[in-house]
Amino acid sequence: MHIFYRTELEKAARRMILIHRTDTLIKLIIRTITRDLKVLHAGIFLFDKQKQNYVLTASRGKQGVKVPPGLVKISNDSPLIKYFFSRTYNLWKDNFLLAKRTRIVLKRDSVKKNTKLKNFFERLLYQVSIYKIDIALPIAFRGELLGIFILGEKRNKNNFYPEELTFLSILSSDVAMAIRNATLFDDLRVQLEKNQTLFFQTISAFAHVIEAKDKYTLGHTERVAEYSLNIAIQIKKIIRIKNWEEFKKNLKIAALLHDIGKIGIPEKVLNKRKPLNDNDWTFIRAHPLIGENILSPLKDLKEVILAVKYHHERYDGKGYPYGLEGKRIPLMAAIIFVADAYDSMISDRPYRKALSRTEAKKEIEKNSGLQFNPKVVTAFIQAYTARRV
Amino acid sequence: MHIFYRTELEKAARRMILIHRTDTLIKLIIRTITRDLKVLHAGIFLFDKQKQNYVLTASRGKQGVKVPPGLVKISNDSPLIKYFFSRTYNLWKDNFLLAKRTRIVLKRDSVKKNTKLKNFFERLLYQVSIYKIDIALPIAFRGELLGIFILGEKRNKNNFYPEELTFLSILSSDVAMAIRNATLFDDLRVQLEKNQTLFFQTISAFAHVIEAKDKYTLGHTERVAEYSLNIAIQIKKIIRIKNWEEFKKNLKIAALLHDIGKIGIPEKVLNKRKPLNDNDWTFIRAHPLIGENILSPLKDLKEVILAVKYHHERYDGKGYPYGLEGKRIPLMAAIIFVADAYDSMISDRPYRKALSRTEAKKEIEKNSGLQFNPKVVTAFIQAYTARRV
Repeated sequence: MHIFYRTELEKAARRMILIHRTDTLIKLIIRTITRDLKVLHAGIFLFDKQKQNYVLTASRGKQGVKVPPGLVKISNDSPLIKYFFSRTYNLWKDNFLLAKRTRIVLKRDSVKKNTKLKNFFERLLYQVSIYKIDIALPIAFRGELLGIFILGEKRNKNNFYPEELTFLSILSSDVAMAIRNATLFDDLRVQLEKNQTLFFQTISAFAHVIEAKDKYTLGHTERVAEYSLNIAIQIKKIIRIKNWEEFKKNLKIAALLHDIGKIGIPEKVLNKRKPLNDNDWTFIRAHPLIGENILSPLKDLKEVILAVKYHHERYDGKGYPYGLEGKRIPLMAAIIFVADAYDSMISDRPYRKALSRTEAKKEIEKNSGLQFNPKVVTAFIQAYTARRV
Repeated sequence: MHIFYRTELEKAARRMILIHRTDTLIKLIIRTITRDLKVLHAGIFLFDKQKQNYVLTASRGKQGVKVPPGLVKISNDSPLIKYFFSRTYNLWKDNFLLAKRTRIVLKRDSVKKNTKLKNFFERLLYQVSIYKIDIALPIAFRGELLGIFILGEKRNKNNFYPEELTFLSILSSDVAMAIRNATLFDDLRVQLEKNQTLFFQTISAFAHVIEAKDKYTLGHTERVAEYSLNIAIQIKKIIRIKNWEEFKKNLKIAALLHDIGKIGIPEKVLNKRKPLNDNDWTFIRAHPLIGENILSPLKDLKEVILAVKYHHERYDGKGYPYGLEGKRIPLMAAIIFVADAYDSMISDRPYRKALSRTEAKKEIEKNSGLQFNPKVVTAFIQAYTARRV
């Protein structure tokens, strides 16, 4: 009969490896253990690098018997930890702490006479009794104590079989490796997220530089990114978008960088208070292409570059720089075009006052199918109706 | 006796999990198998996504017996692959292909009469004989055939024990998980590298924009980054640098972005052909601070920001913007200062011709301890002596 749970547990131990979130992993282990070994409760203390102590991360068992997780932590120099590190205190030189065996030790003459040892075991048994531990096992990897397994009594009060003990030792070392593996994954993931954040912060920083040059109101770029994303969320309901996560990410990058090409427009044109002449307009019309050119080395951002290149093309073909028409304008460019126009309309400019939000929305609806892609306008109105933006 | 290799192999299987490079992992498995199971040779075919077939990735055994890896591949519809997928062909519905058993099958009347089946087994046995297979096992994960294990005969020609077969099945499923795990790691690592590349490409793109504005010779920024790195490699031999990898990465970023603040200098100042007046100099002196300000939201780049901020401070305290002195100037800034000066000297400018490399190096040595940190100058000379740069 105990062969059965063994194979079950072995399978579970194997599956662990593919769980790359430490917390999920720990919970799975504890659930399997309590179910298959039929113990009153079980828990895992895990070493917390920040806090520099061992925290009860998961525990399971009967109400009133199980130790509530999260709150309980034990320090590096508590007996329960020291036991597994010390050749002096671990008299049996083996891989587990058995509560019953430890109680008997206190009756040994050699221990009674040794104050230090006696003291240690008394404090150890105190901890053992608080956490109602019947067995504890180290979760160790290459000499590092990653955590401790604690198990309560079996429901039928029987002792653990020697075979079960061996199996639990093996399981602990499997768990140690699974935890180590999950931690490495966590680290890689954290690094990936950090890099992602740094990337977006960097392009935002550059976007701000362009804003500053262009006398735009502060935060224009960030607002265009926000509007674009909200339009995209609505348009997804009417158009199938392949690889949505990728689309969202690229849209955000494109929105933040849409005006990067303005860096190529002479300052005297950008800052002009008088109406622009033909020569000035040649520069203005070139900024999407300058943007394309600046970003052209970024081979992984093809979609972004196209959105930057075409974000001033009109649906009716009267836009610039190419006069591209209708569906030939990439969706991402069409979205940014509306978001950009909207934010410009509701901002003060040197040569005109801002429109109200209602006026701006009317203006955009009026231009559906002319200046703007009708589906994008629908999505925009959907996103910004009965909402303050 | 066969208990011994089992525990050995079990340990090896366990250790596998922490090998996160698929190729290393495969080699370890094959080495352990051939050594402990005492087979003439063993190999692993792994599914190759690009090529859409199974490639013999690792193999080991006696010269002339082992199958050379790399060259051999088998397609999805070869009998050796089909066998593990098909309920029709795998007559035993179990987890391995035994060559001996398969040979006997061809003598069965039911098979002889069934042309399709006969045909299949003949072709299967042909493959089995080319690769000298005694046993083959599937490496499968959630219905996906990741690869195939092949084992040659035992050196003593004995059959495999049933217990060994069971163990090999378990090992295969462990291997499947380890491979899956390694693949996931590989994927994360590839993504991380991609992001890293994109980040550097992006800041290089922005750096080029600044170059274009500043009438610098094309590629100035990239060259400063290269010189800085080479100086750093030399300085590492005379100064202890904490966290070298991080230092190198940050130095590269800082070198690429050192002049980002020039974006805040009016074009008419940058493009001036006449000598600069006091007002112009106020702008020029501000560019390290403008750079600091632009990058200030990038909380993870503190070291980079300091390097940008101080890359015009002189060792004798006569630099700008703060007149910081000697060792108070961060090392990274001091390195970029020398690299920047060197590249400027050897480039033509509107108002002067370029110096030769020898003249420029002399100029830098002459200014050691005055304009430049002496240790950085030593490292620079070390890096660029008896070499063409």
